[in-house]
Parts: sequence; structure tokens; C-alpha cells
Amino acid sequence: MSVTAPLGFRAAGVAAGLKAKGARDLALVVNDGPSRAAAGVFTRNRVKAAPVLWTQQVLTGGRVRAVVLNSGGANACTGPGGFQDTHATAEKVAGVIGDSAGEVAVCSTGLIGERLPMDPLLAGVEAVAAQLSRDGGLAAADAIRTTDTVTKIAFRRGEGYMVGGMAKGAGMLAPAMATMLSVITTDADVPAAELDRVLRKAVGVTFDRLDTDGCMSTNDTVLLLASGASGVTPDPAEFEKKITEVCADLARQLLVDAEGATKAIAIEVVGAAHEDDAVTVGRAVARSNLLKCAIHGEDPNWGRVVSAVGTTDAVFEPDRLNVAINGIWICRGGAAGDDRAKVDLRTRDVTITIDLSAGPHSATVHTTDLTAEYVHENSAYST
Amino acid sequence: MSVTAPLGFRAAGVAAGLKAKGARDLALVVNDGPSRAAAGVFTRNRVKAAPVLWTQQVLTGGRVRAVVLNSGGANACTGPGGFQDTHATAEKVAGVIGDSAGEVAVCSTGLIGERLPMDPLLAGVEAVAAQLSRDGGLAAADAIRTTDTVTKIAFRRGEGYMVGGMAKGAGMLAPAMATMLSVITTDADVPAAELDRVLRKAVGVTFDRLDTDGCMSTNDTVLLLASGASGVTPDPAEFEKKITEVCADLARQLLVDAEGATKAIAIEVVGAAHEDDAVTVGRAVARSNLLKCAIHGEDPNWGRVVSAVGTTDAVFEPDRLNVAINGIWICRGGAAGDDRAKVDLRTRDVTITIDLSAGPHSATVHTTDLTAEYVHENSAYST
Repeated sequence: MSVTAPLGFRAAGVAAGLKAKGARDLALVVNDGPSRAAAGVFTRNRVKAAPVLWTQQVLTGGRVRAVVLNSGGANACTGPGGFQDTHATAEKVAGVIGDSAGEVAVCSTGLIGERLPMDPLLAGVEAVAAQLSRDGGLAAADAIRTTDTVTKIAFRRGEGYMVGGMAKGAGMLAPAMATMLSVITTDADVPAAELDRVLRKAVGVTFDRLDTDGCMSTNDTVLLLASGASGVTPDPAEFEKKITEVCADLARQLLVDAEGATKAIAIEVVGAAHEDDAVTVGRAVARSNLLKCAIHGEDPNWGRVVSAVGTTDAVFEPDRLNVAINGIWICRGGAAGDDRAKVDLRTRDVTITIDLSAGPHSATVHTTDLTAEYVHENSAYST
Repeated sequence: MSVTAPLGFRAAGVAAGLKAKGARDLALVVNDGPSRAAAGVFTRNRVKAAPVLWTQQVLTGGRVRAVVLNSGGANACTGPGGFQDTHATAEKVAGVIGDSAGEVAVCSTGLIGERLPMDPLLAGVEAVAAQLSRDGGLAAADAIRTTDTVTKIAFRRGEGYMVGGMAKGAGMLAPAMATMLSVITTDADVPAAELDRVLRKAVGVTFDRLDTDGCMSTNDTVLLLASGASGVTPDPAEFEKKITEVCADLARQLLVDAEGATKAIAIEVVGAAHEDDAVTVGRAVARSNLLKCAIHGEDPNWGRVVSAVGTTDAVFEPDRLNVAINGIWICRGGAAGDDRAKVDLRTRDVTITIDLSAGPHSATVHTTDLTAEYVHENSAYST
């Protein structure tokens, strides 16, 4: 279903020759309206790829007619020439579909620091446009994969409207999102300002709470496009819920496909004085390489949890910390609690619960274990 | 030479039975004066082991007669009982050497969350005290090893006085120091307040700038003890230089012995608007698992350097960043520079130079590569 589940959208994915092995590497998503309202959330990395800088400009108008996405090259750290390449790509799309480049968003993913091969890319734009169809969502989702082992798509049905989405990302999942691209579509009729509010809120509690390796990409982009083709103006709360569900669904798919991971770890922080404290603690634990190794080894090493908590400025007293791993409270009052032999870590899903005993707030951050496969995969990525 | 290189110190190391395999696990260092001036720097982790809490209290008096150190157990997250164990250990030492427990520092290292076996430990105190000698520094350094593959000792000769030191630590080397213990001794005559000033300054530019895996321990302790036995009051600047050299020497030994590492990576940040900016950038790069994997794979992936720099709030413009790896400026002006094929990464020592083009300040942070061996070693530490 993907991005073509809602009415008013066509999509396609082709092999333009950007990837070495002839796999699909260029996707196009077109919004046929009647509305073109759109919103975007981008990487907070200060080193932003050319397509991010371009698409941020496009989004200031609150309207997107088409999104062109390529894998096989991030077009990041490519200087003014790289920005011109992005501009030329948008112009090419605009020419082919007969519209304005100012409403064409561009997303790129792949290796940083190399210029894109523009001849195959521009030829690819013609090819992908020729294949646009109402059932092209899956091909588009396939074309944006890099080290992803599966395509990532999701959809939800609202009251008289649909929400669909696709994403890519399998590593470098961090602070604000991941090396991830995601396009979410809906045929609900929602103005750009409301799309922006809803998307920020949804991303804040889903993609933003993935932290697989603490690395923040130069290219992260999540776009939300509304065609209005259903003619339905949704209830704001229900709409927010559906968008959040699609984001959460895609975020979960990113997590379980994270490079080399064998465990999906949910770090639930409860008893926090503020939600921010809960997120801070969750992130600190999610970034502890030592803990991630321990979980990989199925070792309920709660000392590594507690020592990660201790690096934060969250409100807590060390002697009131409680930690459970998969439901067994092996740390109580900052010291050894129930028998660690009771913890069963053979499951793929692992839940670490941290009770700060400092208030009523909570948050969950998701991460993965650290494995030799992660090292192997990332030792040889660009060579 | 180690801690017994300066006059006025005796030391010993024995196997008390805390480690499973009969290796040395208990060390004692005694300052026979005439001075007992001392200073300490401790972990900034808010979860502090019992011996850290105890020794911080001891140091408020500015005097240390003896330091007892054990491996085979961190005595962290052990509650009030664990603190009583530390207290009992100090009392035992005081009884055996005929002095006050209030001037006995205690350091522990090993697994978090388990009580120490006090019977063998207290018996071990008698055994280690019986072996105290002027040439016991090496045995003491051996007894504090955990996953360290070598003993770490250093010394420097000042104008009429000596400085000696020992350290342990092989992983979890981070923000403020490491899972590391270090005792530095001198026979110079220096008051406690001056020792404190010098030690903080030296640690700040040496141990504090090691960041192998971003994990901060509950037990980190660096102690500086002055016996005054040489009768020499050193020139303050020269003394600071010697203490800093010993700290740097020990820090370098920690780095090259880091768990599973095959590369020692120096991240030199130059052209910073402030020294703090340089340290912040250095740390962000040092903590990039993706970069650490790339260096392991001998891949000069400067994109991962630049994207780590972009996560910081340091003063810089993305299009003015320059990056060299082992002297080849492969990123200039935020884009591809010299040919990456010229970078030779087969060396064990790797230097990454980052020019922020924002000012005259600089700092160097040291880290290691991320390897499958790190994962293996830390997946099975407590089991």
C-alpha cells in the first residue's frame, strides 16, 4: 500500500544506475491533489545535505507537488555544485510532470561526500515519471533502500480517509531521527500548518525516540503530504493519532532492521520528575555501548544501566533507583534486588524498565544491541 | 618503579582470593612521610561506588597515610552494607599499620552490584601489609588489573624529587576519566591545596580527554600523594609539568590497552573559537560508533567525521570545515578535498585533524576503533 494507499497519489521506483548492482535507486511520489498541503521535519545536524537545504526551502511554501528520492548517494558535503545538482533534479522533475520546481521536494541517501552522477539520474527521472501509477508505492519504497534488508511501508484507515507511508533506514538511527527518509501521505483535507503541528508531534514521540547508535545523519527527512482527495476534514485528535501510528509503525520497522542487531531493546523510564528527564535517561542508557554489548550477550548487567543513568542530570537519588530487565526487578533501591538468574534474555524483544522514583512522568526510547555484525557492516561500508 | 619510585613510599600487592583464578587482587600503598599531603579527583557519575564516597570524605582533610585498592569487585550499587564494607576495610588497614582510618583511602574495581567477600579481603589486608616494601610498586600495579593486559606504571624525575604512578583501566574510558584507578606519588614537599590544583589541571588535559567508549564508571579515582621525603619544594610550573607528564603517560597506556582496540585514534581539533568547542567536537567524533568502525576497517570515511561535528553546538560554518586523516586533507571547505586513496590507515596510530576555521584554539581527544573483539569482550564480562 505504502504512499499510494491514499487517493490522489501516484508513485514509481526504477533503477537509474546510481547503485552499482542494478537495483532500484530512484523513486518519485506525485500528489495529484486537489490539495498540495505539506509539512516536513528534518535532521538537526548542522551539516545538512544539499537536498535537505533545498527541501526546507520548498516547505516554507507549505506545498509539495512531488517528491523525488534517490539512494546510491547522499549528496551531502558536496559544496555549491551539490546544491546545483539537487536544483537540477527538481527542475527536471518539474519539467517532466509539467509543474514548478519550487514544489518539488528532493531526498537523497547513501555515501556522504561524493557528487551524484547526474546523467543517469536525470535520465532516470524521465523513466520513473513514465512509470508513475496508483500502485507504484511498493516500488518506490524499494528504491529508497540502502542497507535496509526489507522495504518499510505502513498504512492506517481513518474516518473516511487513509494514511500511507514508506521509510528507509537501517543504521545511524539517532537523536533526531536516523539516516532515514520517510514520506507519509494522506487523502484527508488538512491545511499545511496543521500538518506541520501534527507531524512534529508524531515524529517527536516515534522516530525521535529511536537511538540505535547515537549517530545523527546529514539527510534525515520526514515529509507529510495531503491530497485532500477524500474530501474529508478529519477530527484533529483522530488525525494526529493515525499519523502517530504510521510513524510508530515505520519507526518499529527501522528498529528491527537496524544493522547487525539481534535484539530490539525498549528502555522504559518511569517515575520521572519530567518527561524530558525520562527521555534523557532513556537516551543515555540507549547509548551505552557496554550495556548494548551485555544485552547482546544475554547478560542482565544492571550495573551498566545504573552507571549510564548516573551520567545524566535527571532528577533522581542513586539509592532510590529500581531497574527491571524483562520484568524482573534485579536492582532495587540502587542495589541488587531479585535474583538475576530469573531474567530470561533469550527473547528478541528486551524491555529494560528504569524507575527513577522521582515523579509521575515516563517515556520509552528504543535501541538495539551492539554486535560484531554491526562492526563488520560499518567497517566496510564505503570501500 | 611505579608508586615506590619516590622516597617515603612502600607498597605491595597480593592475591587475597577476590578474583577467581588466584591472581593478585589487593594492593596497598603507604606514605611514610614526613608529609601526608594528598589530593583526589573522582568520577562525575552521580552513581558513586562506596569507596569513592568514603575516599572523598578522607580527602576533605587533605591527608592520606595509605591507599588500599582491590580488583575483583567494584563495591558499587551495594547500599549501606557496601559502605560499611569500605569502612571496615579502612579500619582494618588502620589497625594493621597503626594509624587512623580517617587517613586511609579505599579504591575498588570490578563488577558493579555485588558485595565484596569481606573475610578474604580483611585477611588479605594483613597479608599485603606484611609485604610492604620499597620495591613493591610493581606488585601493587599488577594487583589492580581487571581486563588490563599489562600493568601500567610511569615515573618522571623533577629537580631534586621524583614522581611515580600506577593505573588500571582498559575499557569504559570516558567523559571524566575511565573505569580507572590511578595513584600518583611524589617525594616533593607540596601542600594539599597545591596538589589539588595541579592534579585537577593535569587530569583535565590527560585522563579526561580519553574517550574510548563514552561510558563513565562509578569508581574512577585518581589520587596524588606527597611524602615530602626529598625535602624539596618544587617550582610550581615544573611540578605541574611533571605531574601532567605522568598522567599523560598513564593515559596513553590506558588507551593502547583499551578492550579489543586495534587503533589508537588522536582527534586533533584546531581552529576552534574556544578550547571548550575543540573538546566538544573531539568528544562527539570520538563517540561516533560509525566512525570508529570505519577506522577499524581502514576506511578514511570523512563524511562520518563531518556528520559528528555537525551534531555539536561549537562555532563553525559547515562550508569552512577541513578534515585530514593521517595528514591528507580529504575534506576541504566541507566537501571532498585531496584524493582519499592517498590516506594510509594501516598504522596503529591514527590522527584525525579537524579544522573548524573559527579561531585560534585547539584540543586533542583520544579514542580507539570499535571492533568485534570489543563486542565479544563486553558481551560476556559478568557471566
